[in-house]
Amino acid sequence: MTQLEAARKGIITPEMEDVARAEGYSPEEIRERVAQGRIVITKNVKHTHCKATGIGHGLRTKVNANIGTSSDLVDLEEELAKLHAALEAGADAVMDLSTGGDLDVIRKRIVEESPVPVGTVPIYQAAIESRRREQPVVEMSVDEIFEAIRKHAEDGVDFVTVHCGVTRETVARMEKEGRILGVVSRGGAFLIAWMQYNNRENPLYEYYDRLLELAREYDLTLSLGDGFRPGCLADATDRGQIQELIVIGELVQRAWDAGVQVMVEGPGHVPLDQVAANMVLQKRLCHGAPFYVLGPLVTDVAPGYDHIVAAIGGAIAASNGADFICYVTPSEHLRLPTVDDVREGVIAARIAGHAADLVKGVPGAREWDLEMAKARWDLDWDRQIRLAIDPARARAMRETRPPREEEVCTMCGEFCAIKLLRG
Amino acid sequence: MTQLEAARKGIITPEMEDVARAEGYSPEEIRERVAQGRIVITKNVKHTHCKATGIGHGLRTKVNANIGTSSDLVDLEEELAKLHAALEAGADAVMDLSTGGDLDVIRKRIVEESPVPVGTVPIYQAAIESRRREQPVVEMSVDEIFEAIRKHAEDGVDFVTVHCGVTRETVARMEKEGRILGVVSRGGAFLIAWMQYNNRENPLYEYYDRLLELAREYDLTLSLGDGFRPGCLADATDRGQIQELIVIGELVQRAWDAGVQVMVEGPGHVPLDQVAANMVLQKRLCHGAPFYVLGPLVTDVAPGYDHIVAAIGGAIAASNGADFICYVTPSEHLRLPTVDDVREGVIAARIAGHAADLVKGVPGAREWDLEMAKARWDLDWDRQIRLAIDPARARAMRETRPPREEEVCTMCGEFCAIKLLRG
Repeated sequence: MTQLEAARKGIITPEMEDVARAEGYSPEEIRERVAQGRIVITKNVKHTHCKATGIGHGLRTKVNANIGTSSDLVDLEEELAKLHAALEAGADAVMDLSTGGDLDVIRKRIVEESPVPVGTVPIYQAAIESRRREQPVVEMSVDEIFEAIRKHAEDGVDFVTVHCGVTRETVARMEKEGRILGVVSRGGAFLIAWMQYNNRENPLYEYYDRLLELAREYDLTLSLGDGFRPGCLADATDRGQIQELIVIGELVQRAWDAGVQVMVEGPGHVPLDQVAANMVLQKRLCHGAPFYVLGPLVTDVAPGYDHIVAAIGGAIAASNGADFICYVTPSEHLRLPTVDDVREGVIAARIAGHAADLVKGVPGAREWDLEMAKARWDLDWDRQIRLAIDPARARAMRETRPPREEEVCTMCGEFCAIKLLRG
Repeated sequence: MTQLEAARKGIITPEMEDVARAEGYSPEEIRERVAQGRIVITKNVKHTHCKATGIGHGLRTKVNANIGTSSDLVDLEEELAKLHAALEAGADAVMDLSTGGDLDVIRKRIVEESPVPVGTVPIYQAAIESRRREQPVVEMSVDEIFEAIRKHAEDGVDFVTVHCGVTRETVARMEKEGRILGVVSRGGAFLIAWMQYNNRENPLYEYYDRLLELAREYDLTLSLGDGFRPGCLADATDRGQIQELIVIGELVQRAWDAGVQVMVEGPGHVPLDQVAANMVLQKRLCHGAPFYVLGPLVTDVAPGYDHIVAAIGGAIAASNGADFICYVTPSEHLRLPTVDDVREGVIAARIAGHAADLVKGVPGAREWDLEMAKARWDLDWDRQIRLAIDPARARAMRETRPPREEEVCTMCGEFCAIKLLRG
């Protein structure tokens, strides 16, 4: 039985209890929202050591870190180091997006070592293995695609991105309007190339029931990917993107009807004044399904600093209803991220999520800031550092330029305003 | 004649022409907005080598970098290195907030070496020199305060923060409601301590006409400081802060009546859902005077990453009407910033400003992003790097993990979505 099926039957699972405890709600409140599809608990029945993590309405905004090899850089040890850096920095989930090396080995190791939910994009593996058999990507078979998904589910992957909304209809509508930067989703691009070459409908759409059956078996959460995620501001919120969202909304309901947990992925590069509208649209068109956003990136021109760009968009998105933020690292648009990038990316995304949680009314969010404010008033530096989102960084920065008096810092020294007025 | 007086007489000054050229408006449009007080051109008549910089309605959002010594760390060479790092990173203005060492020498050197407007907070010098004469800060005389302001104006400082809205009335109202973190503005704290000790009104309010006369003589722009800038989210948008803003609105009109250019300073620590309201309030209560914000910081808990926290708040603020963003560095709340912090802080603030300019309709903003999008579609890496907000950083990141094929990057390698679909 999936969490959704259990919830609908009125059963409170141990996972719902864990989520309730972690989030400050009653188990019944969690059960109710899981039953409505507004919360997912991403936990494959095979990933037994995975912490139950709730994503959705009223819960703390969660942060995902993408890790994984590329065809150019394959180093399993580095990817495992990234996993642990992400966990230490407070990531709530990781996605293994590996496209280089032994994909099965890498995925198994990441699932093994991860106490948090793990997501993947199985179409990558289907496409890559097709190419490795000297067969063009576009010649992978429908069975090969489903085999990849089953393999991931069998290994304990908790959620998979499936670009089911990339259909003949949505592709045609996107192409008719035209775009500056086309399709930047790798999964979307593989599928479009496949559809064009084979002159067929997207198999993840055509055989969606088969996908639902498979997902139900493992309580694998479907993350309906946005193949038309805009790759630049000029392409944001265009007809292709919104058409896909309409189709995804329909697929959300079919998932619910099949007892399968589902969330929806969203943009992407979006101008600041369109971010809130995108959140409202998703929540309405997808009937309250959890929203998982990548960014949004509110400018195209800051490679090297896209974690900051994404923090701006992510905070606005989450405060307007996004539930799950995929981090963006400083390396975005430039290179495969390093371990340091992973840490920076997670913290930036957590800042965005927390800034939103403060105004979403998430239990406990305001108390944290209030404690920090009081520690500042008390000039209690140990407490300030303990309360910092990254205590090690805060301590290191303070200690490299130590003040003459323990009470203050080197910014204001003896002219500390707080000290002056506290007397 | 000040820029404001000239504009009102229908005179287009060379400075207005420079601003018009830099911003993509006609000189007449700039003149009109200067006459209305909605744009200031911060240029002291004595700072002859200063680039005319417009701040206000319809213009590119400007970024200020605070530099300067503290009582704990005095190193003029480091501060000059910060000045140059700020300029290289694209700061539009700098403030010398020095509180340690020979304040006159430091300020003169910074003004000399700065081709962009320089701001200061003269009350710091008055207070510090009082203490250096073994006289408590609270015993500085009214003449000493005005003498410090005149000295700064005489040295060519282009704008000064003056906390004129810290009055008996506003202090009383703030204290009656109560705060978690009191007053965190150093200038505000000096003045409140002075007012309490002397049982007198704030001299910058009581003798505001004297201040206006002095400012008019040099075309020194007044930046009406927010002494009640909230120091934590819990104190944001409280009665003290808004009462001060009402008083500041009155002082804006008195400045205009005296032919003096004026802008208004704003918060501070503000929850995300109060940022837009703060901008609307300022624009209304201050009749469209340019708004200069510090942050806003949308959470209290991220020391070490406050440049990111401020970028979130700054982008929302600027897109809702703020005209001038004071950077916040990663060192905020921890230590005096380093040269690297200055660079990070300026870029983060520029990202926030640009994300806002894209939706404010600032001329040229969208074209920049569109060029980047096209360079990405063309897989033209030289152009992508040239267009980056920090080309050196973008190049360095790409080059440390070079791809096997020049066309792509190591994130996706051969599975680059753009390459796949462009064919």
